[in-house]
Amino acid sequence: MILILSENTDVVSEEYRQLLETLSALPGIKHRVHHVAGAERGVTEIYLIGNTKALEVEDMRSLPCVDKVVRVSQEYRVLGRHKGDDRPSYFDYKGVRFGQDTLHVFAGLCAVDTPEHVEMMLRALRDAGQVCTRMGAYKPRTSPYAFQGHGKDCLPYVFELAGKYGIKVIAMEVTHETHVDEIRAALAQTGDPTGVMLQIGTRNTQNFELLKAVGRQREFPVLIKRGFGITLDESLNAAEYLASEGNQRVVFGLRGMKTNMGDPHRNLVDFSHVPVVRRLTRMPVCVDPSHSVGSRSVGPDGILDVMHVTAQGVLAGANMVLVDFHPVPSKALVDGPQALLLSELAMFLDDVRLAREAYLKRVASVHQHALAHT
Amino acid sequence: MILILSENTDVVSEEYRQLLETLSALPGIKHRVHHVAGAERGVTEIYLIGNTKALEVEDMRSLPCVDKVVRVSQEYRVLGRHKGDDRPSYFDYKGVRFGQDTLHVFAGLCAVDTPEHVEMMLRALRDAGQVCTRMGAYKPRTSPYAFQGHGKDCLPYVFELAGKYGIKVIAMEVTHETHVDEIRAALAQTGDPTGVMLQIGTRNTQNFELLKAVGRQREFPVLIKRGFGITLDESLNAAEYLASEGNQRVVFGLRGMKTNMGDPHRNLVDFSHVPVVRRLTRMPVCVDPSHSVGSRSVGPDGILDVMHVTAQGVLAGANMVLVDFHPVPSKALVDGPQALLLSELAMFLDDVRLAREAYLKRVASVHQHALAHT
Amino acid sequence: MILILSENTDVVSEEYRQLLETLSALPGIKHRVHHVAGAERGVTEIYLIGNTKALEVEDMRSLPCVDKVVRVSQEYRVLGRHKGDDRPSYFDYKGVRFGQDTLHVFAGLCAVDTPEHVEMMLRALRDAGQVCTRMGAYKPRTSPYAFQGHGKDCLPYVFELAGKYGIKVIAMEVTHETHVDEIRAALAQTGDPTGVMLQIGTRNTQNFELLKAVGRQREFPVLIKRGFGITLDESLNAAEYLASEGNQRVVFGLRGMKTNMGDPHRNLVDFSHVPVVRRLTRMPVCVDPSHSVGSRSVGPDGILDVMHVTAQGVLAGANMVLVDFHPVPSKALVDGPQALLLSELAMFLDDVRLAREAYLKRVASVHQHALAHT
Amino acid sequence: MILILSENTDVVSEEYRQLLETLSALPGIKHRVHHVAGAERGVTEIYLIGNTKALEVEDMRSLPCVDKVVRVSQEYRVLGRHKGDDRPSYFDYKGVRFGQDTLHVFAGLCAVDTPEHVEMMLRALRDAGQVCTRMGAYKPRTSPYAFQGHGKDCLPYVFELAGKYGIKVIAMEVTHETHVDEIRAALAQTGDPTGVMLQIGTRNTQNFELLKAVGRQREFPVLIKRGFGITLDESLNAAEYLASEGNQRVVFGLRGMKTNMGDPHRNLVDFSHVPVVRRLTRMPVCVDPSHSVGSRSVGPDGILDVMHVTAQGVLAGANMVLVDFHPVPSKALVDGPQALLLSELAMFLDDVRLAREAYLKRVASVHQHALAHT
Repeated sequence: MILILSENTDVVSEEYRQLLETLSALPGIKHRVHHVAGAERGVTEIYLIGNTKALEVEDMRSLPCVDKVVRVSQEYRVLGRHKGDDRPSYFDYKGVRFGQDTLHVFAGLCAVDTPEHVEMMLRALRDAGQVCTRMGAYKPRTSPYAFQGHGKDCLPYVFELAGKYGIKVIAMEVTHETHVDEIRAALAQTGDPTGVMLQIGTRNTQNFELLKAVGRQREFPVLIKRGFGITLDESLNAAEYLASEGNQRVVFGLRGMKTNMGDPHRNLVDFSHVPVVRRLTRMPVCVDPSHSVGSRSVGPDGILDVMHVTAQGVLAGANMVLVDFHPVPSKALVDGPQALLLSELAMFLDDVRLAREAYLKRVASVHQHALAHT
Repeated sequence: MILILSENTDVVSEEYRQLLETLSALPGIKHRVHHVAGAERGVTEIYLIGNTKALEVEDMRSLPCVDKVVRVSQEYRVLGRHKGDDRPSYFDYKGVRFGQDTLHVFAGLCAVDTPEHVEMMLRALRDAGQVCTRMGAYKPRTSPYAFQGHGKDCLPYVFELAGKYGIKVIAMEVTHETHVDEIRAALAQTGDPTGVMLQIGTRNTQNFELLKAVGRQREFPVLIKRGFGITLDESLNAAEYLASEGNQRVVFGLRGMKTNMGDPHRNLVDFSHVPVVRRLTRMPVCVDPSHSVGSRSVGPDGILDVMHVTAQGVLAGANMVLVDFHPVPSKALVDGPQALLLSELAMFLDDVRLAREAYLKRVASVHQHALAHT
Repeated sequence: MILILSENTDVVSEEYRQLLETLSALPGIKHRVHHVAGAERGVTEIYLIGNTKALEVEDMRSLPCVDKVVRVSQEYRVLGRHKGDDRPSYFDYKGVRFGQDTLHVFAGLCAVDTPEHVEMMLRALRDAGQVCTRMGAYKPRTSPYAFQGHGKDCLPYVFELAGKYGIKVIAMEVTHETHVDEIRAALAQTGDPTGVMLQIGTRNTQNFELLKAVGRQREFPVLIKRGFGITLDESLNAAEYLASEGNQRVVFGLRGMKTNMGDPHRNLVDFSHVPVVRRLTRMPVCVDPSHSVGSRSVGPDGILDVMHVTAQGVLAGANMVLVDFHPVPSKALVDGPQALLLSELAMFLDDVRLAREAYLKRVASVHQHALAHT
Repeated sequence: MILILSENTDVVSEEYRQLLETLSALPGIKHRVHHVAGAERGVTEIYLIGNTKALEVEDMRSLPCVDKVVRVSQEYRVLGRHKGDDRPSYFDYKGVRFGQDTLHVFAGLCAVDTPEHVEMMLRALRDAGQVCTRMGAYKPRTSPYAFQGHGKDCLPYVFELAGKYGIKVIAMEVTHETHVDEIRAALAQTGDPTGVMLQIGTRNTQNFELLKAVGRQREFPVLIKRGFGITLDESLNAAEYLASEGNQRVVFGLRGMKTNMGDPHRNLVDFSHVPVVRRLTRMPVCVDPSHSVGSRSVGPDGILDVMHVTAQGVLAGANMVLVDFHPVPSKALVDGPQALLLSELAMFLDDVRLAREAYLKRVASVHQHALAHT
């Protein structure tokens, strides 16, 4: 059960003290307090854990400071979309709104290689009016003998260049909690020129210790990708690890799955799950067409498969797109074959725009039909 | 290697006799003649099988009656899209064109139950301007004790009602070669009021004897669905069984796959393969959202998942949609829970239309960008 | 519900007539009579289908001619192992007993190529004291352009040679009902020198029309293999199609499954399901190590993987082994790389024997421990 | 390329200095020194990384201190079994030898709950002559709200009781590098009464940062389990992460895989891979029947499925068995339903013994046949 406190709740007030005292006295119930950073001054939520079936929603609502009460189902307690639950499905970061009602493209380098390539990428994004990017510094690789990313060494120039070109948010994978410290330090050292969305990759979806560490910090929002070999439900529970530690600014990423089908793409694209994640949870949903498709194959209609599946994700309501570009794919250190060219950026963004327009028209059309029937 | 003969080739001419004589004399080469029913009077193709590497394309083109020569790669010889191959990617049937450039919706009953329901369905389709439908008479079921469809008994009234409501093509699954005879007989008995596209279901994708039997007849076009537990490549080879026996009027259907992911839908939707099938072969591509999704789940945007995935398929260039409707889903004998209501038909068709419009805009946009770069 | 009649039931007696009359009068119940070929004179079973919950076991047992009554659970009605069900888990054919308590090796050619190779194979089997073999005449192949087997042309010499070398049962795949007629005709023509166990391959596991046709004949027992891309439950239901048409002499074959694991073998070996099939049904269980493993890889202990997995299946209670041998694997037309050599036959049979001995010791040990505890 | 130095190499000798100098001068080659703890005084290995194709094996062998040279294939450089590679496939720890030629059973509690249960378990093991066990203190769980193990709090009594009952090695999962410190501290605090084999669970198989941390310490050997949703090759590469950091005392664990087959067991048992891992690498192979099977199902022969699959693994050469027991399964906090009873311990160990005996007989039989052929 979640108690959502009134917006003006003062945590040093007598009323608040009384509330906590009452909660402490409930038999078989523990409580945990979370201050959720929201659009404005944030709200305070108290999670009641244990035998909450014995509690009445009305009784809880009558306690001091309590504004709303949500009885949650077993799973995805914090991030889930529960019955009668009108908690927001968005958050703001660095002036950018990430929600189930917005769409942002994060085009960028799968792996940072040289300052020149980073700058070419960022300049192209600025020229195309983009304020988000992806930049890989820490790369988990199947073999211990493969290139593992430049790590913290590249952070200063990546952040400075981001600031120079007006980038507000960089999605960046971390594979160990110390990477968060390194990112924080590099941002401080360069004067906080940009924001970072921490990314949990598919190999770490069930690395619960990393999730807990990243969930405990509130500074950076987190993009968690589904595990490519586990169920959607298991992946959503993994996202809940982040939230259960306090960080609710979570985006959920689809990136294809491993199947037994000798898939013609690198992975089986799972963007049919976009509406499912939006229905089960309040998280914005990201799609990663590059790692799903893994090639630059083109259909007989002249459209790249990467673009086709991106458009499919957006048409079903996706809120974020993570896509690999590279100035010189043949020189990319990781996943070059799937990268788009800078000269294709405008075409890609136009394609995304057409799919988004179609999505909005579909929503309007369905609502109109629904109205006609009532 | 395929020799495509001139359109005006007379198979009782001296030239044609000479051609066959020459081919018979080629060492290590067998040939097989196919008359392909095309848009107008059809064309004749001769497949050369064996050590064709030793043959020169130029030599073959200089033979009498030969118009074009296609050197095929190993797989999907007949249906594949080979280098320098400009054979058509469409066919006509009952005045309807099925091609990689058209789109038709086949809404209808998964399983025929009563004449009343069939009539309600067909009337709604006529009122919505549709000329295609799906009607299941022969139902393969996992358990031998489940309802197996009304079989040939329902064919007369299904065909008569189709004629009454202006339906030109009915997609209908067959699971044994005798079903084709039964369909032919019922059409003859009722005066050929409509056309039938034979459907090979996912359990029979590798029932090669059935494929060969259905491939040998040229009367009915065939929709073959991918096997839900085999690779795309294996399924495309199965389609080739139809063509290798002479029937090239083949549509390939995607219908979701079985995965290990505890999929939130009945199957994992595989419509990201639409552009792949269009690239590898010249077959029109059908999507079956009903069997992929298997439920009436709705997203927070009010759009059914069945509609979301349909739109995703169409946005990537799908040419045919097979979708379950039912006047009274609760009374449906098979797969009722996934059926749409007749009252949702207009909304569904509008949604398909929006996705198709978006697809055409995407193609135009990509071509414009390509032109700007040259 | 199954009524098992007394062994001496005379189907032209007055009592039997009365029984059928009573059953016909039961509201909401249909009945179907099956004469099951058993060890001696066979028994008669009557299946009651419909609302059998309303019937009392005692009432049914009191009807004339009825010896036992089995209330079956929903699935695998005929072949399943139901509560209180002591129907036999074996059958006899050509003097060989196939049961959950026996073990037979069917070594032989995956695909018949020449009479010489067939004879070399059969002579080696006779010399090793074997009376069963596998011989492939009809080969379903992924591509329509691959070798499809010699079909009926090779049957006469295969059967005659089998007779010459004392082979009693040949496992032989069929992919169309006409193949059964061809086999019957070839046996008649050659004077019935041997027996045939019809084999349903993995691509036809859900070819229900073929299963029904093969289930309607009672002459030949049937080996049905699990589908490599469907669930075990679906495959067991497919076996039930055979039995529901009357043929209960069914062996169930495990042959590996397709997975997403980039399996080091051709398929993922599923012989851990041997005890599961034995628990759920009364069918003898066959394992096919050759198609599961698909190679001649050898471990550091000098034992072929094909032998390791065979031994694993036998150690868990398998009752039949289907294994590919070939006198000259490099000349085999199908699956040569996985075939064992004739010079390895004695080693293979010794290995199977050691695994079988270990299985019997394990059963004895567990029973002894169980006794000690009571 | 790996240079294996002579056993008596003195790392402060002039010769050794010369060797390193020579290696440093090789263009395009880096080297890394590893001291491998072996049976007696250990050996020193030097890994050459980079363009080793340009180096001749003979040239390298002629360098001072070098005893053997192994040219490794690309993958599994350290742990792999390379051509002409006779490095040992075993290691010793706490007086117990873990190798491809030994077998040890690690029966114990999936999750430690109370000191009483731990003591009951350990006493039973001592009485059965066992010196190894498994004890779970840190439990990664799908949901953040499930019991996560007692963690470091239970370590002191677990270690003390182990010492009391003569247990030499406890397999214990760790999910964060700090757990290793906690284990080290608790051992020191209790006077090092026992040894610990660190266990990497299936969710962390590709948690490369954890692998690197555990690979850097040489105190504890490591059991790494295959990832249940990745390929065997990816899992073996993960094991190589441990070795590439210096810890070569690695056991590889099979524990079943997630498939799309609606598996009748919790996971699809993959013990057919035992000989594969033994062929590709020099690691001892562990099987985990409890997590593969996940239930206490019994076959018609009275043998538990858990026992059947254990025996299958051992029959193919497995070197270690990890199996869940519990004094009172109904009170187990994690995975109770799959645990065996203490009263079943003797039966289980007898069954393992029978399978091991059969394995050894099989090896002898195959060698005898091989000799007869030469």
